[in-house]
Amino acid sequence: MTTTPATERPPVLDRGVIPPLCTPLTPDGEVDDASLRRLVDFLVDAGVSGLFVTGSTGEVAYLTDRQRLHTLRTVVDAAAGRVPVAAGIVDTATRRVADHARAARDGGADALVATAPFYVPTHPAEIRAHFRALRSATELPLLAYDIPSFTHTKLPPGLVAELADEGAIDGLKDSSGDIDALRSVLEAVTAPRFRVFTGSETIADVGLRLGAHGIVPGLGNVDPHGYVRLQAAAEAGDWAAAEREQARLRALFGLIKAGDPARMGPYSSAIGAFKEGLRLRGAIAHATTSTPMVPLDGAERAAVRDHLAAAGLIEKGTA
Amino acid sequence: MTTTPATERPPVLDRGVIPPLCTPLTPDGEVDDASLRRLVDFLVDAGVSGLFVTGSTGEVAYLTDRQRLHTLRTVVDAAAGRVPVAAGIVDTATRRVADHARAARDGGADALVATAPFYVPTHPAEIRAHFRALRSATELPLLAYDIPSFTHTKLPPGLVAELADEGAIDGLKDSSGDIDALRSVLEAVTAPRFRVFTGSETIADVGLRLGAHGIVPGLGNVDPHGYVRLQAAAEAGDWAAAEREQARLRALFGLIKAGDPARMGPYSSAIGAFKEGLRLRGAIAHATTSTPMVPLDGAERAAVRDHLAAAGLIEKGTA
Amino acid sequence: MTTTPATERPPVLDRGVIPPLCTPLTPDGEVDDASLRRLVDFLVDAGVSGLFVTGSTGEVAYLTDRQRLHTLRTVVDAAAGRVPVAAGIVDTATRRVADHARAARDGGADALVATAPFYVPTHPAEIRAHFRALRSATELPLLAYDIPSFTHTKLPPGLVAELADEGAIDGLKDSSGDIDALRSVLEAVTAPRFRVFTGSETIADVGLRLGAHGIVPGLGNVDPHGYVRLQAAAEAGDWAAAEREQARLRALFGLIKAGDPARMGPYSSAIGAFKEGLRLRGAIAHATTSTPMVPLDGAERAAVRDHLAAAGLIEKGTA
Amino acid sequence: MTTTPATERPPVLDRGVIPPLCTPLTPDGEVDDASLRRLVDFLVDAGVSGLFVTGSTGEVAYLTDRQRLHTLRTVVDAAAGRVPVAAGIVDTATRRVADHARAARDGGADALVATAPFYVPTHPAEIRAHFRALRSATELPLLAYDIPSFTHTKLPPGLVAELADEGAIDGLKDSSGDIDALRSVLEAVTAPRFRVFTGSETIADVGLRLGAHGIVPGLGNVDPHGYVRLQAAAEAGDWAAAEREQARLRALFGLIKAGDPARMGPYSSAIGAFKEGLRLRGAIAHATTSTPMVPLDGAERAAVRDHLAAAGLIEKGTA
Repeated sequence: MTTTPATERPPVLDRGVIPPLCTPLTPDGEVDDASLRRLVDFLVDAGVSGLFVTGSTGEVAYLTDRQRLHTLRTVVDAAAGRVPVAAGIVDTATRRVADHARAARDGGADALVATAPFYVPTHPAEIRAHFRALRSATELPLLAYDIPSFTHTKLPPGLVAELADEGAIDGLKDSSGDIDALRSVLEAVTAPRFRVFTGSETIADVGLRLGAHGIVPGLGNVDPHGYVRLQAAAEAGDWAAAEREQARLRALFGLIKAGDPARMGPYSSAIGAFKEGLRLRGAIAHATTSTPMVPLDGAERAAVRDHLAAAGLIEKGTA
Repeated sequence: MTTTPATERPPVLDRGVIPPLCTPLTPDGEVDDASLRRLVDFLVDAGVSGLFVTGSTGEVAYLTDRQRLHTLRTVVDAAAGRVPVAAGIVDTATRRVADHARAARDGGADALVATAPFYVPTHPAEIRAHFRALRSATELPLLAYDIPSFTHTKLPPGLVAELADEGAIDGLKDSSGDIDALRSVLEAVTAPRFRVFTGSETIADVGLRLGAHGIVPGLGNVDPHGYVRLQAAAEAGDWAAAEREQARLRALFGLIKAGDPARMGPYSSAIGAFKEGLRLRGAIAHATTSTPMVPLDGAERAAVRDHLAAAGLIEKGTA
Repeated sequence: MTTTPATERPPVLDRGVIPPLCTPLTPDGEVDDASLRRLVDFLVDAGVSGLFVTGSTGEVAYLTDRQRLHTLRTVVDAAAGRVPVAAGIVDTATRRVADHARAARDGGADALVATAPFYVPTHPAEIRAHFRALRSATELPLLAYDIPSFTHTKLPPGLVAELADEGAIDGLKDSSGDIDALRSVLEAVTAPRFRVFTGSETIADVGLRLGAHGIVPGLGNVDPHGYVRLQAAAEAGDWAAAEREQARLRALFGLIKAGDPARMGPYSSAIGAFKEGLRLRGAIAHATTSTPMVPLDGAERAAVRDHLAAAGLIEKGTA
Repeated sequence: MTTTPATERPPVLDRGVIPPLCTPLTPDGEVDDASLRRLVDFLVDAGVSGLFVTGSTGEVAYLTDRQRLHTLRTVVDAAAGRVPVAAGIVDTATRRVADHARAARDGGADALVATAPFYVPTHPAEIRAHFRALRSATELPLLAYDIPSFTHTKLPPGLVAELADEGAIDGLKDSSGDIDALRSVLEAVTAPRFRVFTGSETIADVGLRLGAHGIVPGLGNVDPHGYVRLQAAAEAGDWAAAEREQARLRALFGLIKAGDPARMGPYSSAIGAFKEGLRLRGAIAHATTSTPMVPLDGAERAAVRDHLAAAGLIEKGTA
C-alpha cells in the first residue's frame, strides 16, 4: 500500500462552497442538535464542498466554549466524512485562540479559521506574531479570517502573502468586501497550495473571477443550491451564468434587511433572517437567536418569507 | 447581634483608587504568583481602596480562562479581605460573559466589571438586554465598563442612567475619555448608591471634580501613592493640590510612549512600560507581556527608567 | 505721543465669551442684514468680549464668498469697535484659505480662525506647512481651529505647541471635546501671549478651570448672558457658581436635539434650533437655514420653545 | 435642416477613459499653461474619450477659484472640441457648488462633477436636496462624485438610483472602491441614459465587467494608452486581455507609494508621483505640487522612475 504525500494531495479546503453554518438553537438558547444535523444534511445534499462551523454567521461570539465544541462535534458526526469541517476559533488573542485550536482539533475539525486579535487594537507586527504562534499550536490547516467590520483591523495583503509564503497560514477567508485587496493577495502569494475564499454573498462571482477558489456565504445556509450553481458555472468558465445566479442571490440577500434598524442592529436582522429562512425551508425547527440579539417580529418574518417566495425557494403564502 | 441592611452599607466599591492590576507573567508566559502577591501588597500598602483584576490593563484579552481565574484567586487570597477585589469579565457576548461572572463569583470576586458586547457591532437595545441578562446571572455588584476604543461602542449616557435606575448595574467604569458624556451620566442617574469611576490617568482630577467617586488608573500600578494623594486631595476639596499631583502624574504617563510605533501598537508600548516600571520599583520580577505583544527593547526600557527617575520614583541611574 | 508696543498690549482676542454668530438669513437664503445687526447688538449688550463670524455655527460651509465677506463687513460695521471681530477662514487648503484671509483683512476683521486642510486627508507635516504659509499670508492674529468632527483631523497638541512657540499661530479654538488634549496644549505652549478658547457649550467650565482663556459657544447666540456669567464666575475663581451656570446651560443645550434624526442630520437640528431660539428671543427675524439643510417643523420648533421657557429665557407659551 | 433631439443623442460623457487631469504648476505654484496644453494633447492623442479637470487628482482642493477657472478655460481651448471636458465643482455645500457650476458653464465645461456636501456631516435627505438644488442651478449634465475617503459620506446606492431616475443627476463617478455598492447602483438605475464611471485605477476591469461605462483613473495621466487598451478590450468582450492590461497597470500603480509615509500623507505621495511620471514622460515641465503638500525627494523620484521603466513607459536610466 502506498500513500500520497500531503503536498501532492489537494488541500483539505480546496475549492467550492463552504457555508458558514448557522447554529440552530432551542427556544431556551441551547444548541438544537436535531436541527443542526438536519442542516448538515440539507447543505451536504445541496452539494457544498465543506462546512464551516462557529464562524461569525454561526453566532460564535455568543456561544460558550462548551456550546462551540458541542456544535463542532455534532457537525463532524453528522457530516460523517462526506465533506471536511472547518471550525472558527474566534477569540481576542493568541493564547485564547490556541486553546480553541486544541479543542477544535480534539473535536474533530479538519481545518481552523482564525481572525486577527481584536478588542485591543493591534499592530501588523502583532498580527504576524499571532498567526506564527497559532501555527506552532496546531498541525491543522489554518485559514486567516479577514473581517475588519468585526475586528476593526484589515489584514494587509502584503502580510497575508508573507504568512502564506512562509507556511504560517494555508488560506484566507476574505470577508472584507475589499476587492482590490483580495486581488493583491491573489497576485502576491506564491505558495501553490494556498487557498482563498471570499466571504461575500453579493460579489462572490467577482471573487471567483479574480482567482478565489471558493465561497463562504452566510446566505448559503438558506440557498446552498444557488451558490453551488454559481461556483459550478464559474469553474466551467460560464461567467454569464455565474452572473445570472449571482443576480438572483443578490435579490434574495435583501432579506437581511428584514429587521427594523430602530429596534435592532444589522447582525440581529441578518442572522434572524437566515434562521427564519432555514425554518421556512424546513431545515431547522426554531429561528431563535442568542441573547442579547433582538428577534424578528411577525412583520419582519413575513418579509423574509416574501424574499424566499420571490426567489422560488418556498411556495408563496407558506408560513 | 444585628446586621446592617445591604442598602444602608456603603457599596462594595464606594470611592477611592482601584488600580487595574497588571498581570505579572513569568518569562514563559504563565502568571507569576509571587510577583502578583508582591504587587497586591505594594498597592494595598499604598492605600488603594480596591483591586481590579483582569481588566484591560491586566491583559484580560490575552489570558486564558484558567489564567483569569487563577489570577483572581491569587489576588483574593493575597488581599485577604484588606480591600475588595473586582474582576473584569470581558468577553464578546452575554453567555460567555455570564460564564465568567459565575467563575469570578466562585473565585471570590467582590464585584464584576463588564463591557458592552464586542466583535459583532451592537445596537443600544442589545446592550440593554446584555446588561439585564448579566444582572440575572449574578448577585454580585456589577459595573458597566465603557471603553469604546476597544469595544467600538460608546455606552450612551441615557442608557447607562436607565440601567442604573432600574438596578441592572451598580456603577460605571468610564474609560471613554469623554468628559461631556461622563457628566451626563452623573447628572442623569438618580440611584443613590450608583458609583462612577474614571479610568483616566490624565484627567482623573477633572472626573472627581465633576462628581466621579473614584479612579481606576492603569498608571496606578506604577505610582499608586500618587493617585491616592490625588484622590485624598479631591476628597478634601483641595483642588489645587489635586491638580498639582495630576500634573506630576501626567508627566509620568509619558512613559506609555516608550515603545517605537513603527515596531508595535500602543498597547504593547503602554503595558510593557507599566510592567517595566513595576519591575524597576521591585514590585514584580519580570516585565514579560503576552503573545503576540511586542516587548520593549533596551532603549525603550531606558526611556521608562528615565520617566520613573524624573518622577522621583527611583534613583536616577537605577537599572 | 507714545504708543504701547504690540507685545505689551493684550492680544486682540484675550479672554471672555466670543460667540460664533449664527448668520441670519432671509426666507430666500440671503444674509438678513437687519437681523444680523440686531444680533450683534444683542450679543454686545450681553457683555461678550468679541464676535466670531463665519465659523461653523455661522454656516460658513454654506455661504458663498460674497456672503461671507458681506457678513463680516456688516458685523464689523455694527460692532463699531465695541468688541473685536474674528472671521472664520474655512476652506479646503492653503491657497484658498489665504484668499479668504486677505478678503477678511480687507473686510475689517481683527483676527482670523483657520482649520487644518480638509477633504484631502492630511499629514501633520502638511498641517504644519499650512499654518506657516497662512502666517506668511497675513499680519492679523491667527487662531488654529481644531474641529475634528468636521475636518477628520485632530490637531496634535505637540504640533499646536510648536506652531504657537514659533509664532505661526496666536491661539487655539478647541472644538474637539478632547479635554486631555486641551490640557496638553495648555501645558506645552510657552508663548505667553498664546490664547486658548474652548468651543464647548457643555464643559466650558472645565476648559476654563484647566486654563483656557475664553469660550466660543454656539449656544452663546441664544443665551449670551449665561456664558458671560459663567466666564465671570470662573474669572472670580467662584467655581461653584460657574458649575451651576454650566448646569443650567447644559440643560438648555438639549434644544439641539429638537430635530428628528430620521429626517435630518445633527447640524440641521442644532443650527435650526439656535436660530429658532434667536427668533423667539427677538434677536433675528427668521429661523431660515441654508440649502440643503432641513428646516425644523412645527413640533420641533415647539420643543425649542419649551427649552427656552424652561431656561427662563422666554415666557412659557410664547410663540 | 434637422437636429437630433437630445434624448436620442448619446450622453456627453458616454463611455471610455476620461482621465482626471493633474494640474501642472510652475515652480511658484501657478498653473503652467504650456504644460497643461501639452498634457491635453498627450491624453487626446492617446485616445481618451473626455477630459476631467479640477477633480481630486487635479488638486481641486488646493486651487483658488481663479486657478480652477483658468485651468478649465485652458483645457477647453486646448481640447478644441476633440473630446468633451468635464469640470469638478468640489466645495463644501450647495450655494458654493452652484457658484462653481455657473463659473464652469461660463468657462466652457461640457459636464459637471459634484460631491456630496462635506465638512459638515450630512444626512441622506440633505444630500438629496443638494443634488436637486444643483440640478436647478445648471443645464449641464451633472455627475455625482462618490469619494467617501474625502467626503466621509458614502452615497447610498438607493439614493443615487432615486436621483438618477428623477433626472437630478446624469451619471456617477464612483471612487468609493465599493464594488458591491457599484453593482447595486447599476442594478437599481432604470434611466437609460445614466452613465457610471469607476474612479478605480486597480479594479477598473471589474467595474467595466459589471456594467460601468467608463474609467476615470488618476493613473491615466501617466499611462493613458494602457487604460485606453483596457477599455477597448472590455468593449470587445476580451476580458482576458482587459485583465492582463489591468495587471500591468496595477504594478505601475505601485508608484503612488513612492513617498515616505513618515514625511507626507498618501495624497502628497500619489499626486507627486503622478506629476513626476508625467515629467519623465515629457508631458509636463515640473512636478511641483500645491502648498502644503510635501514634494518627493530624490530617492522617491527615483522610485517613480523605476516604476515607469518597469512598465516600459520610459527607458531604464532616464532622468
